[in-house]
Formats: sequence, C-alpha cells, structure tokens
Amino acid sequence: MREFKVKVEVKLKPVVLDPQGKTVLTALHNLGYDKVEDARVGKLIELKITDSDASNVKERVDDMCKKLLSNPVIEDFVVKIEE
Amino acid sequence: MREFKVKVEVKLKPVVLDPQGKTVLTALHNLGYDKVEDARVGKLIELKITDSDASNVKERVDDMCKKLLSNPVIEDFVVKIEE
Repeated sequence: MREFKVKVEVKLKPVVLDPQGKTVLTALHNLGYDKVEDARVGKLIELKITDSDASNVKERVDDMCKKLLSNPVIEDFVVKIEE
Repeated sequence: MREFKVKVEVKLKPVVLDPQGKTVLTALHNLGYDKVEDARVGKLIELKITDSDASNVKERVDDMCKKLLSNPVIEDFVVKIEE
C-alpha cells in the first residue's frame, strides 16, 4: 500500500460569472493594484489516499469529483496525483 | 507589456482545524470511498496581470496575498506564475 497525495483544483467554467472573483478584483483595484485585469476564485481540495495502484487512485478521484467535490454543470476540475 | 497568469493557492496551516475538510472527508466515507484518509479544503485564486517584468509581478502578488487574499495568521499561500 502506498500513500498518495492528491490535489484537486475546482474552477468555475469560463462562461460562468464569478461574483466572488469580481469582488476580489474590485478590492485589489481599491488597494491600488490596477494592473490586475481579472480574478477568479476556485477551490483547492487536498486528499490523502492509501491505495496499491496509482491508476486506481486517478479513476476514483475523478469519480469523487463528479459525485461530490465539484458541480459538473458549472465547474471544471483538474486532478493531480503526487506520491 | 506582457500578460501573466498567476495562480495563488491558499491553504489553512497544518496546525489549524479544517471543519470544511472534515465534512468532505465524512461525505466521501459515506459514499464508500474509505481509502481517503484526510481531506483539506483551500482556495485557488487565478489572476490575470499585465506588467513589464515577471519579478515585479511575483513581489506584488506576494503583497496582495498578505494584504487581501490570505489570512497570514491561519493560512499559508503559494504563488505560481505562468506566462
């Protein structure tokens, strides 16, 4: 059994409005950072998984993302596996 | 002027309790993913910045993180710059 560290990045799809990002952008402008042109806010989920096989892990985490970690209607996700 | 895509990962410090992560972990276990041993939830902020110099960008984003994007008391951040 090996331990895998998995990073899941969940972002809103590019066509979906991001009010939280918009608020961050406005706040940055108010602080004087006027070279920032866009800001979008997503989620970063880190998992620790014990399994025997890396390909298993990838498949399962994809599954978790579809079922629980992301909303596939409005969000995209990227899974990165480190050991 | 070049356009930089900057990714900021904001995570709770390891010593800080993460109730949101704990909830995700319980939900994953309830769905049958019992090989997941830990889950932590952070933020992923993507910025688009126009500037002439990459080293400027890194410095400014570090600054933004300290002032607005993270809470340095309980959170760590990592800045990654892509072009």
